[in-house]
Amino acid sequence: MNNNFTCPVPIPEYDKILLGHGSGGILSHKLFEQFIHPHISNNILDDLHDSAVFEINNKKFAFTTDSYVVQPIFFPGGDIGALAVNGTINDLAMAGAKPLFISVGLILEEGLGTDELSHIIQSMKRAADAAGVKIVTGDTKVVEKGKGDKIFINTSGIGVIEKGIDISPKNCKAGDVIILSGKIAEHGVAILSAREGLKFETTIKSDTAPLNKLVHEILNVSKNIHVLRDPTRGGLATTLNEIASSSITGMFIEEEKIPVDEEVRAACEILGLDPLYIANEGKLVAIAQREDADKILDAMYNNEFGRDTVVIGEVTSDNPGEVIMKTTIGTKRIVDMLSGEQLPRIC
Amino acid sequence: MNNNFTCPVPIPEYDKILLGHGSGGILSHKLFEQFIHPHISNNILDDLHDSAVFEINNKKFAFTTDSYVVQPIFFPGGDIGALAVNGTINDLAMAGAKPLFISVGLILEEGLGTDELSHIIQSMKRAADAAGVKIVTGDTKVVEKGKGDKIFINTSGIGVIEKGIDISPKNCKAGDVIILSGKIAEHGVAILSAREGLKFETTIKSDTAPLNKLVHEILNVSKNIHVLRDPTRGGLATTLNEIASSSITGMFIEEEKIPVDEEVRAACEILGLDPLYIANEGKLVAIAQREDADKILDAMYNNEFGRDTVVIGEVTSDNPGEVIMKTTIGTKRIVDMLSGEQLPRIC
Repeated sequence: MNNNFTCPVPIPEYDKILLGHGSGGILSHKLFEQFIHPHISNNILDDLHDSAVFEINNKKFAFTTDSYVVQPIFFPGGDIGALAVNGTINDLAMAGAKPLFISVGLILEEGLGTDELSHIIQSMKRAADAAGVKIVTGDTKVVEKGKGDKIFINTSGIGVIEKGIDISPKNCKAGDVIILSGKIAEHGVAILSAREGLKFETTIKSDTAPLNKLVHEILNVSKNIHVLRDPTRGGLATTLNEIASSSITGMFIEEEKIPVDEEVRAACEILGLDPLYIANEGKLVAIAQREDADKILDAMYNNEFGRDTVVIGEVTSDNPGEVIMKTTIGTKRIVDMLSGEQLPRIC
Repeated sequence: MNNNFTCPVPIPEYDKILLGHGSGGILSHKLFEQFIHPHISNNILDDLHDSAVFEINNKKFAFTTDSYVVQPIFFPGGDIGALAVNGTINDLAMAGAKPLFISVGLILEEGLGTDELSHIIQSMKRAADAAGVKIVTGDTKVVEKGKGDKIFINTSGIGVIEKGIDISPKNCKAGDVIILSGKIAEHGVAILSAREGLKFETTIKSDTAPLNKLVHEILNVSKNIHVLRDPTRGGLATTLNEIASSSITGMFIEEEKIPVDEEVRAACEILGLDPLYIANEGKLVAIAQREDADKILDAMYNNEFGRDTVVIGEVTSDNPGEVIMKTTIGTKRIVDMLSGEQLPRIC
């Protein structure tokens, strides 16, 4: 038996995973496109939505997975458990699906308090109940102290998509409105503030929330929703770039229309961060036919997670694949995808 | 803002997660029953099968999740990627489901070689292809060096269960035969030997394999399959105890009928391990009506992963909830569930 059993391919010293590969920005995309996607490409995966969408017996399903490694595991506005449940619910909702069932895979570090574990599990249950989904299966693994970081959680989920719903960037067309469901950057700033021990007048809380009911209400009033996305890792800027790139349209947004809480904005200035690139965990971007904008906005205002909904811009035929922003001082600039690592382990 | 934001409940010093909580044995069950299950109990989860089983539009589905933290990540006979895909396929198959779709959640440690990652992803793809399932969605997170251990993988999966299939311990009855699909303890011994650098005449290889086709062939010849289980963490002894406990029947097995490779047996003696408690990753236990035994055995012999299939015992009305073994020297003894930690991070 060989006691030096290692990977059978040579590993160049410079070719290592970096923290930035987990940022959700350009490095994450490169990692996926270079080392993962080419090996596992298939017709369903290649759609590259937040959820896989497929048919079984003429019924459309959405299926998604996300692992959560957020640090700290308890933070103002939530904890890793609520975040993991809401995140997977939202990924299903962004495919236009009604989330039904969720799985929970726990990786615990030796030494984690069992009361911390209980607290997180209870938080997952509350989040699941609030969204009307069931946690139906799970798994627990334990790693030695120093080989993990308290707790990592994977949640995967299944939802069903009703007939007639077709959420896809390919449906985007010039003139569509870009709707944002509320203030940005709260989750990322809450996490970083907790991590760095920053104190503000009021505590900045994560916006973690389940958006499935908001999506349900949007789809109730309009069948002309072309894209739904939750701007998590990489923030609003990265999400809009992804949509622009996959729909081959331009995105034109106006900075002054993008709502940011004053305290969040101040925190971003102190920390040297751009709110456009900060993760949200309870917001969505909807791109829809302009004619339906009013009724969509009405529906959103009436949902507790859509009270600050605004139209932030429109889809253009100019600048396909790019996001252009009119700044508050009236100039225009290209808003790129997040490059490198702004905030590690934000979710 | 509070810079000491921690769990809002007190954490007794002695109440911590131990490595043994990940063993799959008594401690794992206690952890689940004490700190997890009470908080998330519902009618589907409470079945506590390897997969959740539910109906959508009159169609029966199986859904399962598993995280893999095996160390080392490359080992004789496979790697963490193949193990993760086969493991989830097998959990679906043990519910009598045809596995269709799999998700992949990666947690990478900063510094992992991208070539190691590529190699693992390719291995996942080969395993998925061999079993006829598709990897349709995924997620990648990165943690700082020293906060993970190279790579952890979660796989979740969805399968469909055909009408008329009802795999459940509640169907077990006295007189049913207990069938084992081959030699035990190979995966666990391969991992431990690789980890400890033990050398034997020939390399002991993990038995990691997809069992969905074997299950399909079993179900083709008999509708009287009462239980299907893959004896992974905790080994054959723990699996039989779980079945005995949930079916409230006794399990009677004969030690001399349980096949163990000679070299694996020798390794177990050197390491002070009992093969009955060692993980398998390509074996199954089938409990079936005695009248159908011959045709089930014929079907299993003809499958590449069932060539060493044997009947190892029978279900009894005596000793409900217990596993009794006739030893090679003719005495009888109770075989308990694994207590404590025999082999950490075996899968």
